[in-house]
Amino acid sequence: MTPLERLRRRIATLGAPLCLGIDPHPNTLPEGLPHDASGLESFARGLLEAAAPSAAAVKVNVAFFEAFGSAGLAALERVRADVPPDQVLILDAKRGDIRTTAERYAAALFGHLDADGVTLSPFLGDDAIEPFAAFADRIIYVLARTSNPSAGTLQHLGLADGGTLADHVVGWVSARWPRPEVGLVVGATDAQELVSLRAGHPDPAFLVPGVGAQDGDLGAAVRSCHGTRAPGLVNVSRGIAGASRGLDWREAAARAAEEWRAGMAAAGATLPA
Amino acid sequence: MTPLERLRRRIATLGAPLCLGIDPHPNTLPEGLPHDASGLESFARGLLEAAAPSAAAVKVNVAFFEAFGSAGLAALERVRADVPPDQVLILDAKRGDIRTTAERYAAALFGHLDADGVTLSPFLGDDAIEPFAAFADRIIYVLARTSNPSAGTLQHLGLADGGTLADHVVGWVSARWPRPEVGLVVGATDAQELVSLRAGHPDPAFLVPGVGAQDGDLGAAVRSCHGTRAPGLVNVSRGIAGASRGLDWREAAARAAEEWRAGMAAAGATLPA
Repeated sequence: MTPLERLRRRIATLGAPLCLGIDPHPNTLPEGLPHDASGLESFARGLLEAAAPSAAAVKVNVAFFEAFGSAGLAALERVRADVPPDQVLILDAKRGDIRTTAERYAAALFGHLDADGVTLSPFLGDDAIEPFAAFADRIIYVLARTSNPSAGTLQHLGLADGGTLADHVVGWVSARWPRPEVGLVVGATDAQELVSLRAGHPDPAFLVPGVGAQDGDLGAAVRSCHGTRAPGLVNVSRGIAGASRGLDWREAAARAAEEWRAGMAAAGATLPA
Repeated sequence: MTPLERLRRRIATLGAPLCLGIDPHPNTLPEGLPHDASGLESFARGLLEAAAPSAAAVKVNVAFFEAFGSAGLAALERVRADVPPDQVLILDAKRGDIRTTAERYAAALFGHLDADGVTLSPFLGDDAIEPFAAFADRIIYVLARTSNPSAGTLQHLGLADGGTLADHVVGWVSARWPRPEVGLVVGATDAQELVSLRAGHPDPAFLVPGVGAQDGDLGAAVRSCHGTRAPGLVNVSRGIAGASRGLDWREAAARAAEEWRAGMAAAGATLPA
């Protein structure tokens, strides 16, 4: 099965587009875990075992492993090898570089680490994306409207031809790669903007961060995942991984993931597939 | 000495703003080097010894090491440890992420790898840059106008308030961090645009890629490095690292670096410091 076939199957089985985000900061690891690469590894493995069964995909942020250099990357390699074969692994890397360099990042993320999907930055244009799109069955989400407070610095700039830069990125990516494997990152922190971008561009899949700790609109996020070329995903990181910092962190993460899954299933119950 | 003091001293001593780019693709390594992380390491060390003495700074592209996973990153760590203390090391990483993640990338690049400078992507706005700017004495170059063929996909978009996105990024970064340590990446592949961005924004330092293999305008590149808050840099990668793929690659790179240095010194001889 291709990554997209696995993703479709998991979403159908779980009834919800929950994506489990793993972004482990060494200073916020649960009690008993060392504040180093081995602590990150134990935490990520624990979340994969306890919480990932409720999630249609797992999104691991590579920065938190890179912070520990080669030891961190070796931990990420072991975590990757432990992801169950029916799961979907997205590496959140937000890379964007000239073609020859983008080819090496694709070799790192799709080759060496064998990710099912990645996040990419659009600033360098087509040839920053193409080396990843050349891996035809892998999933790509290009940043369009991120969930951080200063997302608007550039993304809200108005263009001479109308619309914002974020809107332009969604339109460009959707038209340039009209395939179910290529989607966009659009945050839920501004529900009105999410709804507007969805309405203006009904086809591409969205990966939606910003619910949970960032307080985005869950209903709008779930609705944005339906009726598209491929099913979208709604990411929850701290809302699951940070459910408890005590010794019960595995059980707490499992419970939180199941609650998020059920909440998303309820929010999407009346929607078309 | 701070990284910027070292950079100023090297440029004054060498009389030229040459930045040596190290972007080693395994398939284009010189004869006799294995096509793996150890080959990259030998090549990078050889360039550091042979060619870097003619360069004011060395820019290493992390993608080429990441392609080999933890083994590649371990090679980069050893290469970094061998950079002479009077040299200036820029890690070309083009990172751009939300604040909590950007902090971990800063920990990776400025902390763990102890880079003197980095390249960053602007797409996520202020809070993607701030965790790096918090390392007050380190050097940052934010992408504004890159040297790749599809740079214009987004960077040439016209804004409702006038000017292009690239122009807006230069203005925003220069006003937001009006310090000599914060500059921009502006390619030399379109000389007219480089001259225009320089004229519109006389203060921030530019890191200028695109001369050499990418055929940018050397005179315009060198002129753009003068009269700014901090001295700019003109990067040459393949023009030095690719000077020979035979067994004489070290000598060829040394000769090419010295020729580029002399050419830049001549082009800048009549300019104010």
